[in-house]
Amino acid sequence: MNFTKKNFTLDHIRQELVRLEDSIIFALIERSQFQKNDIIYKCGGINIKEFDGSFLEYFLHELECAHAKVRRYTSPDETPFTTNLPDSVLPPIQFPKLLVPNNVNINDQLMKIYINEIVPKITDEGDDGNHGSAATKDCHVLQLLSRRIHFGKFVAEAKFNDPLLQPKYIELIRNKDKCGINDLLTNLAVEEKLLRRLRRKAAIFGAEIDGDGIPTLKEEDNKIPLDVVCDMYEKYVIPLTKVVEVEYLLERLKYYPSFVPEF
Amino acid sequence: MNFTKKNFTLDHIRQELVRLEDSIIFALIERSQFQKNDIIYKCGGINIKEFDGSFLEYFLHELECAHAKVRRYTSPDETPFTTNLPDSVLPPIQFPKLLVPNNVNINDQLMKIYINEIVPKITDEGDDGNHGSAATKDCHVLQLLSRRIHFGKFVAEAKFNDPLLQPKYIELIRNKDKCGINDLLTNLAVEEKLLRRLRRKAAIFGAEIDGDGIPTLKEEDNKIPLDVVCDMYEKYVIPLTKVVEVEYLLERLKYYPSFVPEF
Repeated sequence: MNFTKKNFTLDHIRQELVRLEDSIIFALIERSQFQKNDIIYKCGGINIKEFDGSFLEYFLHELECAHAKVRRYTSPDETPFTTNLPDSVLPPIQFPKLLVPNNVNINDQLMKIYINEIVPKITDEGDDGNHGSAATKDCHVLQLLSRRIHFGKFVAEAKFNDPLLQPKYIELIRNKDKCGINDLLTNLAVEEKLLRRLRRKAAIFGAEIDGDGIPTLKEEDNKIPLDVVCDMYEKYVIPLTKVVEVEYLLERLKYYPSFVPEF
Repeated sequence: MNFTKKNFTLDHIRQELVRLEDSIIFALIERSQFQKNDIIYKCGGINIKEFDGSFLEYFLHELECAHAKVRRYTSPDETPFTTNLPDSVLPPIQFPKLLVPNNVNINDQLMKIYINEIVPKITDEGDDGNHGSAATKDCHVLQLLSRRIHFGKFVAEAKFNDPLLQPKYIELIRNKDKCGINDLLTNLAVEEKLLRRLRRKAAIFGAEIDGDGIPTLKEEDNKIPLDVVCDMYEKYVIPLTKVVEVEYLLERLKYYPSFVPEF
C-alpha cells in the first residue's frame, strides 16, 4: 500500500482500482479452468480432521495464518476472512494514518455472493477432482475482491475530505441517512466507463489463443463469458464497495474534526 | 491432475503445458507491478523470529505447509520447494500410477534462476515496501514454473512409451548418455512454435489498456517486456524441463519392463 500526501487523491485511488481490475480478471480466468467442484463449499463436504466447516474455509484459514505471520492484516488495505489468526513474526511497521479506526469488514457477505453468484457463472458444472487447485484459485479471487471492496474506505475518506462536499457529508452522516450518503458517493459516469472498460478487458485477457499465438476472436471461445466480469462489478462489486464506503463514513464522524489523514 | 488412459498422450500433455503458459504469463505480470524489493531474497535481510533464511524462503515454507495440509504434494505433478512439511489432514487418495517412483526435484536450481535471472528482468529496481505482496506473487510464479518444469516427468514417460523410440531410449539410458537422451527428447519445431506463441501471448495479456478499455498497442507500454517470457522459456524453462526429463529417464530403466502406466 503506497499512499503519500501527494497521491492520496481520488485519481490515484482510482488508478489502483483500475490496475486491480486486471488482477481480478486474471484470477477469475484462472479459477474458470476447473469445474465447479461444489463439494469444496459445503460444510463437511470433505471430511477434515478436527474441523467443522467447508474445505474452502479450512484452506482459506490456513492461508490467512501464513499471511498473518508476515503482517498482511496489519496493512489498512487488507481484511481477513477468518479469525483466530496468529501474530506476525515480523516487527510491526507504522503505516500512514489515512483512515479512522474502524472494523468495517463485509467479507462474510462477499464470500456468500462469491460462492452462490460468481462461481456458478465462471465454471462448468461438475467435479473434476481438482479440489485443491480450485480452492487455491478461489482464495486468490476472494482476496482480490476483498481488497477491491474494502478499498472503499480510502475512497470514502478521500471524498469526505473534499472541502466542497464535506458539510453535506456531515449532515447526511448526522442523520444516519444511508441512502443520501450512497447517492452523494455515486458517480454514474465513472461507473459506466468502468463497466465498458471491464468488458473489453475480459475480451482481451480471456482471449483463446491458438497454437501459433493468434487470438481466435470468437466470443464463445473466451475463457470466461464476456458479460460475467461487468455483471459481477455492476451487481456486486460496486454495490459492496459502496456499502463499505457508507459504513466507514458512519464511523467517520466520531473523529471529526480531530482526525486528518497523516502521512 | 487429470490423466486417463485415453488422454495420457503427448498431445494432451502439451495442451496442459500450453494452458500453463497463460497462467505463468499472468503470474509474471502480477509480480511485475511491484519493484524488485531485493531485501526479501537475502538471507537475514528481514529479521524473522527463530528463522535463518530469506523472507521469501520463510513465507514459501509457510504457504507450502498450508498446501501440504490439503494434500498438494501427494499429487505427482506437484513438487515442493521446502522440507519438513506437515501431514495432510485429508484422507489419502490414490492417484493413477503414471510415473515410476522418483525423487526428481530441481526446485533449488529453479529458485536461484528465478531470483537472479527472472526477477531482475520483470521488475523495476528499488524497494517500494510491498514485501509481502511481492513475495506472494513470487511464490505463485515459482509454483507454476515448478509445475511446468516437473511436468517433464510426464513428457518423458509418454515419449519413453513410444514403441518406435523405446529401444533407442533404453540403449541411451543404459549408456548413461545424457546428451544423447536430451537430443532424442528434443523437438525443435515444437520449441520454435512455442517461443513464437509466447511472444504473442505476452503482448496480448500484458497489453496496457486505457481508461476506455482500448489497448494502447505500444510495445513499450506492455506490462512486461515482450521478450522476457520467450527468453525465459528458451534459456531456462525448456532446458530445465529437459533436465527433469533426462533425470527421470535415468531412473526409469530400473522399472523396465515391469512398470507400465496404470490408470
